Formats: sequence, structure tokens, C-alpha cells
Amino acid sequence: MTDVAAFSFDKLVIFGVGLIGGSLARALRERGDVGGERRVIGVGRSAASTERALELGVIDASASLADDAALRAALKGADVVLLAAPVAQTQPLLERIAPFLDPSTIVTDAGSTKSDVVAAARAALGERIGQFVPGHPIAGRESSGVDAALPDLYVNRNVVLCALPENQQACVDRIAAMWRATGASVHAMPADQHDRVFASVSHLPHVLSFALVEQILNSSDAALKFSFAAGGFRDFTRIAASSPEMWRDVCVANRSALLDEIDGYTAVLARLRSAIEAGDGATLEAVFARSRAARSEWQERATPTQKASPERSATDDASK
Amino acid sequence: MTDVAAFSFDKLVIFGVGLIGGSLARALRERGDVGGERRVIGVGRSAASTERALELGVIDASASLADDAALRAALKGADVVLLAAPVAQTQPLLERIAPFLDPSTIVTDAGSTKSDVVAAARAALGERIGQFVPGHPIAGRESSGVDAALPDLYVNRNVVLCALPENQQACVDRIAAMWRATGASVHAMPADQHDRVFASVSHLPHVLSFALVEQILNSSDAALKFSFAAGGFRDFTRIAASSPEMWRDVCVANRSALLDEIDGYTAVLARLRSAIEAGDGATLEAVFARSRAARSEWQERATPTQKASPERSATDDASK
Repeated sequence: MTDVAAFSFDKLVIFGVGLIGGSLARALRERGDVGGERRVIGVGRSAASTERALELGVIDASASLADDAALRAALKGADVVLLAAPVAQTQPLLERIAPFLDPSTIVTDAGSTKSDVVAAARAALGERIGQFVPGHPIAGRESSGVDAALPDLYVNRNVVLCALPENQQACVDRIAAMWRATGASVHAMPADQHDRVFASVSHLPHVLSFALVEQILNSSDAALKFSFAAGGFRDFTRIAASSPEMWRDVCVANRSALLDEIDGYTAVLARLRSAIEAGDGATLEAVFARSRAARSEWQERATPTQKASPERSATDDASK
Repeated sequence: MTDVAAFSFDKLVIFGVGLIGGSLARALRERGDVGGERRVIGVGRSAASTERALELGVIDASASLADDAALRAALKGADVVLLAAPVAQTQPLLERIAPFLDPSTIVTDAGSTKSDVVAAARAALGERIGQFVPGHPIAGRESSGVDAALPDLYVNRNVVLCALPENQQACVDRIAAMWRATGASVHAMPADQHDRVFASVSHLPHVLSFALVEQILNSSDAALKFSFAAGGFRDFTRIAASSPEMWRDVCVANRSALLDEIDGYTAVLARLRSAIEAGDGATLEAVFARSRAARSEWQERATPTQKASPERSATDDASK
């Protein structure tokens, strides 16, 4: 990805002004040397969230998704549109936006899955798909909503852009420059590879963590078990406190890659089960030692943000 | 369990002076109003660890396990003997100690599994099994060894005692009083129940965490995946940095309860897999919401120590 020095914009329109959209707005206005008029318009399904964003000064104006005239005015002359709503809303949102979209506006998104988002965008935008640059900022907090938005949420975080063959390089560079202006590192990756990588390191662990709590709840002595749960349980299940709606959508949207990961994981677990049943300590120790070495190496190489304190980033992605 | 006001001792002998044994010694000598002469003797397989414990003032004297005369002298008149070595060493250690054991000495342990420890103690002690009170302090740190020992490691932690029918109540009360003097809460539980509870909330999550890292390592693009791993992976795999030797022993020692948990978990995962494959968002959301509610309720009820910062207690049990 070519390096781009600076970013400037006159108008940014954010659909879904929560943690993710709100933090982008704050970062572009409060950090660095971003140029242009820097007007930010928020569009939401409920008036409550955009009103709160206005109160906090995160956006300059709001528009209702239901109001044609307001939506047309909001999108007129927009440099960038960010979709920061749950991924299942991508297609209806883009269908709603399409009639009012200027040919020079670049649309991007912040969804945790990419193949399904690309398919939704192709269905909604048709020949104008080149205007859509799929993206995924890897950032979250335990708290969600615009009140949790921070100007430095993206500092040292990774943002993945899954550019399409139809995208002009200048459009991709402009979205990359936008994210770099927030302090993030930008990486290029095809959508299917993105989905395989995150199925493995993020979506699968979330499913496994929810499943452990479910397994305990299924037992007759769940209360006793919870009362003796300690540090191992706490860390392992921190992500089981994530948004059920968001993770439902991620699981369904990325089902193909996630099913492959679940099948591979079930096979690993079956091999460990056999070793435990056979009392095969040598195999267990070899696997555990290999895992520990890899985990320790990851910890050493990880950026301060990857290994930041849980209060700040217990989940990989936010329910926006 | 009857309440016991205070604890006093003249001589405590610790087999394995690492984090767990060293923290008990420090707690009993530096905290509270423990009475008696409070002499602590450390016995280890290697001279290095007992010498370091001497240097740090954690113990008053050391004895070599290989030296009959030294061992006899160390055990003579001991009030309490603590085994704080890996559980697989319980039987050989007790066989070594038995010939020198005073009838009035109470032996206890700090192992993470209890049924196997009880079986080992019965085999080694025979008719003198009543002198052995099985125990398990639920405490650990990422660091191990006597240098990591802390006088307040057990404050607000749980200690489980799995009293045997052969134990006199006074012996059990005395070990309970010892742990309470360190600031811990003491709970009574049969050994088989203990093993089922900890298979569920501790041993299974450790296996699952090791297995996730193994699953990523098995893939052709492991390096790419690790480079995008973020907060979810970090929390989920923190326990995969635990001691391979210790967890090998725990898995083998508690295999019966752990296999039941793995089978139950595999069934839960298979149900989630079916829901994902069917695109059954309602089932996924219901399970995730139920898990989140239980995890959040646990977090609210947890003691400050259960939810303490990972630096302090990422693992439930220490490799001693």
C-alpha cells in the first residue's frame, strides 16, 4: 500500500455513531494535522444516539435515516461515508444510501467480517461497487456507545483494508490515509484471507468462551462451580461478556471460515482427549510446551496495544 | 467446619519451597498473630531452591531429601508438614517421609487435584492415613519459584480441604486455622467433588486454551494469524503460558473428571456448530446472551481477588 502523507476532508458521514464511528470522528478532529472543513454528520436509526453524539460535540449535525430530504442533504458533497453499524445491516443501509450518493464519495465500513460485506455491497451498489472500500479496524472496548468513544482508540491499532479489483488505487489510498491519521497501521488483505485469519484468532475464541460458560450452566452444580472459578476462568471467559447480537451476526456472516476453524479445533481437542485418556503425558507436555512457547513469543512481539490492559480492550471488535 | 481462632506452631516442614510453600512460610511469619516458635524447614530435590529460600529468609534451615539423618532431624517434632511439590510426587515423597514421621505431626498438601493425591497418600501411609489432611489453595501467579513468594498471596483466596473419614476433626481444624491465618477462606468438599469442580472451571479452560494456540500453529499461515491476534486472543490464551509439566500432571491425575468435561464441552460446541451451519441466529443469540448474563453475574459477585489484575493471578495454580 503506497504511503500517503496527510488526510483532509470537508464532510464525513457516519452511519452508526457509537464507539467505532464516534472514535473515528474524535480522532480526525482532535488529533494530528487533518485538513479541510472537517464537518462530521451522524446518521442513526434512533434519534437518541445521534442526539447524544451532538451533545458531546462528536458530530456537527445529524440526519434521520427515514428522512429522504435530510439524507440527501447529508450525503451531498460527502468525501467519505463510514458504515459503523452491525454487518447484517450493510445491504439495506447501502440500498438506502445509493440513490443519494455522489460519484466522488468513497464509502467504507468497519465490519468484523468482509466477504459477506463485499457481497452485500455488490448487491446494493451494482456497477458503483468501485466506490466501496471494505475495511476493518481491529479495536474495541468493554464499553460501547458514543460515550465510550476516544480520540486515541485507534493509536497503534491495526486496520485491514480488503480492496476490490474495482477500486481505484487513489480511493484505497485515501481511506488508508484516513485511518493512518487516527494513529492506526493499515494493512492490505483479500476479503477471504481476512475472514480466515479472524475466524481463527478472534471469532473461534469468542465461540469457545461462550461455550465454556454454557457448559458450566448445563451442569447441576453450576453455582458451586462458579463460586470456585478463579483467574483462569476470568481471563478465558472475559470475551463471553461480549455483545450476543454482534457475535450472532459475526458467526452467521463468517460461517464458512468459522466452521473450518471449529472442525480443526474439534480435531485438536479430540487428539488431546485421546492423550489424556491414555495417560500419555509425553504428548500432552509436548503440545502444551509448543503452545506456551508460541504464546510467549507472541506476547514478546505484541505491540503495547495488543497486550494492553483488559479494561481497555478485552474484545477485538466493538458492538458499535 | 468449626471456627478456630488462632494458629500457633513450633516447626513447619515444607517439601518444595517455591511460590506456594514460600508464600505460606512468609504469611505465617510476617502476617497476623501466629504463635509458637515458628521455625520453618525447607526440603527440596535441588539444593539451589532451598539455598535461595534461606538467603531470602523464607526458611530457617534446609534439609536434603537424600540425607536420612537430616530428614529425620527435620521431621522430628514437626507440627505440620506441607507437600508443595507437583502432585505426581506425592506418593514417593510420602513413602520417603513415612519412616521419620512423628505420630503427632499433621501432613497436608497443596495439589491441584485431590482424588489421586488421596490414593497416593493411602498407598504410602497405610494405617497412618489419618495424619494426612488433603488441601488445595486456589492461588497462583505468572511467576513461580521462591523469589515470587508473597506474604499476602492467600489473602481473600479460597482454600479447599478434602477431609478424610480417618482424619480427627482436631487435625482438620488445625490445618484450616493455618490457612485462615494467611488470610484465606477455608471450604470443605469431598475429593471427588473437588476434582469435578476444578475440572470444569480450571482444568478444562487450560486444555482449551493450549488447544487454540496448537490449532493456529497447525495452520499454514500461523505467522499472519498471530500478527493480527488482539485482545480476545490475549485473554483467552493467557493460561496457555502456564507450566506444561504442571498441566500435564493435572490432566493425567484428574483424567476421569476432565474427560467428562471435554465430552460435555465437545457436545456444546457441536450444537453451536450446527446452529452456525444452519444460520440459526436465534439459537446462537440465546446461548451467547445466557453466557454473557452468567459471566457478568459472576464478575459482580467475584471477590476482588477472583477478578484481580492478570499480572497477579493469571493462573489458578502455580507450578510450585
